[in-house]
Amino acid sequence: MKTAITPTRDEDYAQWYQEVVKASDLAENSPVRGCMVIKPWGYAIWENIRTIMDRMFKESGVKNAYFPLFIPLSFLEKEAEHVEGFAKECAVVTHHRLEKGPNGGLVPAGPLAEPLVVRPTSETIIGDLFAKWTKSYRDLPILINQWANVVRWEMRTRLFLRTTEFLWQEGHTVHSSKEEAEERTLMMLDVYEKFARDYLAIPVITGRKTAGERFPGAVDTFCMEAMMQDRKALQFGTSHFLGQNFSKAAEIKFQTVQGTEEYAWTTSWGVSTRMIGGMIMAHSDDDGLVLPPRVASSHVVLMPIIKREEDRSRVMDYTKGLAQDLKNKFYVYRNLEVEIDTRDVGGRAWDWIKKGIPVRVEIGPKEVDQKTVFVGRRDKSPKDKAALDKEVFKEQILDILEEIQQNILVRAKTFKKKNTVVIDEKQKFYDFFTPQNKQKPEIHGGFVLAHWCTNEACENKINEDLSVTIRSVPLTPKTEKGKCIYCGKDSTQRVVFAKAY
Amino acid sequence: MKTAITPTRDEDYAQWYQEVVKASDLAENSPVRGCMVIKPWGYAIWENIRTIMDRMFKESGVKNAYFPLFIPLSFLEKEAEHVEGFAKECAVVTHHRLEKGPNGGLVPAGPLAEPLVVRPTSETIIGDLFAKWTKSYRDLPILINQWANVVRWEMRTRLFLRTTEFLWQEGHTVHSSKEEAEERTLMMLDVYEKFARDYLAIPVITGRKTAGERFPGAVDTFCMEAMMQDRKALQFGTSHFLGQNFSKAAEIKFQTVQGTEEYAWTTSWGVSTRMIGGMIMAHSDDDGLVLPPRVASSHVVLMPIIKREEDRSRVMDYTKGLAQDLKNKFYVYRNLEVEIDTRDVGGRAWDWIKKGIPVRVEIGPKEVDQKTVFVGRRDKSPKDKAALDKEVFKEQILDILEEIQQNILVRAKTFKKKNTVVIDEKQKFYDFFTPQNKQKPEIHGGFVLAHWCTNEACENKINEDLSVTIRSVPLTPKTEKGKCIYCGKDSTQRVVFAKAY
Repeated sequence: MKTAITPTRDEDYAQWYQEVVKASDLAENSPVRGCMVIKPWGYAIWENIRTIMDRMFKESGVKNAYFPLFIPLSFLEKEAEHVEGFAKECAVVTHHRLEKGPNGGLVPAGPLAEPLVVRPTSETIIGDLFAKWTKSYRDLPILINQWANVVRWEMRTRLFLRTTEFLWQEGHTVHSSKEEAEERTLMMLDVYEKFARDYLAIPVITGRKTAGERFPGAVDTFCMEAMMQDRKALQFGTSHFLGQNFSKAAEIKFQTVQGTEEYAWTTSWGVSTRMIGGMIMAHSDDDGLVLPPRVASSHVVLMPIIKREEDRSRVMDYTKGLAQDLKNKFYVYRNLEVEIDTRDVGGRAWDWIKKGIPVRVEIGPKEVDQKTVFVGRRDKSPKDKAALDKEVFKEQILDILEEIQQNILVRAKTFKKKNTVVIDEKQKFYDFFTPQNKQKPEIHGGFVLAHWCTNEACENKINEDLSVTIRSVPLTPKTEKGKCIYCGKDSTQRVVFAKAY
Repeated sequence: MKTAITPTRDEDYAQWYQEVVKASDLAENSPVRGCMVIKPWGYAIWENIRTIMDRMFKESGVKNAYFPLFIPLSFLEKEAEHVEGFAKECAVVTHHRLEKGPNGGLVPAGPLAEPLVVRPTSETIIGDLFAKWTKSYRDLPILINQWANVVRWEMRTRLFLRTTEFLWQEGHTVHSSKEEAEERTLMMLDVYEKFARDYLAIPVITGRKTAGERFPGAVDTFCMEAMMQDRKALQFGTSHFLGQNFSKAAEIKFQTVQGTEEYAWTTSWGVSTRMIGGMIMAHSDDDGLVLPPRVASSHVVLMPIIKREEDRSRVMDYTKGLAQDLKNKFYVYRNLEVEIDTRDVGGRAWDWIKKGIPVRVEIGPKEVDQKTVFVGRRDKSPKDKAALDKEVFKEQILDILEEIQQNILVRAKTFKKKNTVVIDEKQKFYDFFTPQNKQKPEIHGGFVLAHWCTNEACENKINEDLSVTIRSVPLTPKTEKGKCIYCGKDSTQRVVFAKAY
């Protein structure tokens, strides 16, 4: 069967992804190495993500602020592990103007006394300000979020999944007790999980990262991981309990109720435009993008069919009237977005299928006469279309969108469940992660729940052998006796292994 | 009379401004030279500005997108005037990692083959992409906006008004005809003017910039200028007709209906966080910030007064109930924001006055008994407070906010009108712009409508003598014969002179 996207997922998953992004006009590479251009159809998704998450953050007491793009090198150096973790990927500003060089062209001039790093993340610069703002326990907690761009110089980039510049939110909080900071770390992980499930229609697994996968400088990193359709894991959002590490680096101290002085406890947590990459890879099919209605760039496209000029005005009137009625409906914090595509070209409907719009409506003279609409849905086959009474369609459109949202979620849940297995034998584990079909090596594996003895050496060996990592250590494990999948030593809990992006 | 802000506007306007920003907790300087931290009370204003303007843009057909932070040096060099205009203020990225230096500290490493400039504005990078997207007249117009941070290295900075990094929106459009591009340029100027008047409560003058004040690379720059309370002008937003200059630099060409190939016509237009600075300087008084309700960080503060512990629960219940009722009301694209301040400190009400919240409400046992609220408004004197029936207050709150909005606008209009004068004699003109009182040299002058012969030499001379510039050349001038205020030669129209930020 001919598909709208070539190659298909089965044929070449990585290339399929690139083609879906291109065909849906979400984003493209820019002439600046590793930096992408997010085009309107893609940026609208980010705007929706931002609107929804921003409300969730604010409901939990967090306020937005904005901090400098640049971080003085000396700030970054204050926390040793932190700078170690980011040193290899820092864009560095060394000059503050341009002037004519010896060959007539412009060259950097005005060298800076101290180089500035373009923020890869903002713990150190925000920490400096938090130190000023934190005097007494009365000033705490401080609950701040920033929506911003960050830069991490990447050698191999991929639209949305890994780009040198990306958009994200970074939450930063300061607390007077360890317990409160830990609670906030998990609270935000919970917000992320809810958002992924209820809006992106992606079921995730949450848990704790092992020491080797921790955020540089964190005491504990919690994460959510989603399963892509090639059965790899995508790290999708992280929440870090920073202990007093950054407080000590930036001198964030406060006077306690008792009058003593203590270092504060901090957290940070973030999600990025990478989420859009995950959403694409979790739901799209061989005909292109599939958008969950709740975050979709637009909800409905109306396609008038005008074969004879004499039909034009009544078909267009009918179409515009319907568009207006639909636009008056409120759905997930905004009015319905409705497109009218009057282009008279072959493949018009296929353009919208590839762009992932949830609902397509065809309107010709017949529909006008019968007061109906001819409806296709992105959660069904492209040819599975049905006539609906126009008034009924208007009444049901929000239900239809919610049904699509639900269907997409159920499909993703089923896929994840089917590809999450319990394995207790080393050979089976190794076989599971070894491609059986050399032609399409990417489609194999999944999430494996296996025992691990907590020894880093076993974790590293598995990674070396199979490029498989521990994605997550469950937070509330079923205590269960077992043997480490690698070394066979005693273990008390299973962890989640997978190949990952 | 004691004022909450020292010095007062009359005593030292520049210092008063800094103190208002500080006392209202809008923003502060960061440890990064010239970069500010926008704190929650200030960032909320930017969020409101963004929400409202974004709707206005989208209603005019514009869509949002996102382009790279970095611009390769060679791109910037493509338009000669443009790079000339920005070369002195470019932050330049020259390295992409850090490594241990000879002294053990980290030093920039991984030199880039081509330096990257942190965008001071994005015409050149966006132009490169527009060139790819523009093939035929059918692809036009392209109407794109981006909300982003930009960097212009400034030697002397001032919170909101002039900072090295600032937040802004930059609209960029491509058209198939000169007329359509010119129309878009003026359309967006009109959007800016409406936004300033209807939301920021600031009456502006709009017009064309003289050649010397044009955006580097533009054919024509249009602007809006607002009068601050020291009677200086603040450039508040600009819209540029770029002709084919940037199209030629970036090769933005399209096939016309007739099949010929032509360079496209482009525009760009922007406003920034500078608007917040203007809003502060236009409305605030010697007691601190005055926020126009339509863009206010928050609308109402409730201050329970509890002198005896036995009153606590009924006063708090009454307060919380009222807060909930108010929060359910919808006002300018969002629900009312309501603060409850339970702090038991002297000066609590003054804190909110300094923060500019539109409405303050005191609630004690007496109010609970009488089912009233005791209301103060930021557009009235701090002591001018009145008891209102609680139900009446709830019914009228939106009207009260709109009345405050209106009062602030009328005050600003009156001030601007009073300080805009027609002058025809050179000596009077010079006297007008020369401080009469050496003690407070800043409070003098205003907007002067005077004749100008269009000779750049006269413009420059006046600037040298008085630091006064032509802020704007009216778009639809009253044709009127007169003599140039500087040289006395014939002139056909008046222009607006002022000192400016």
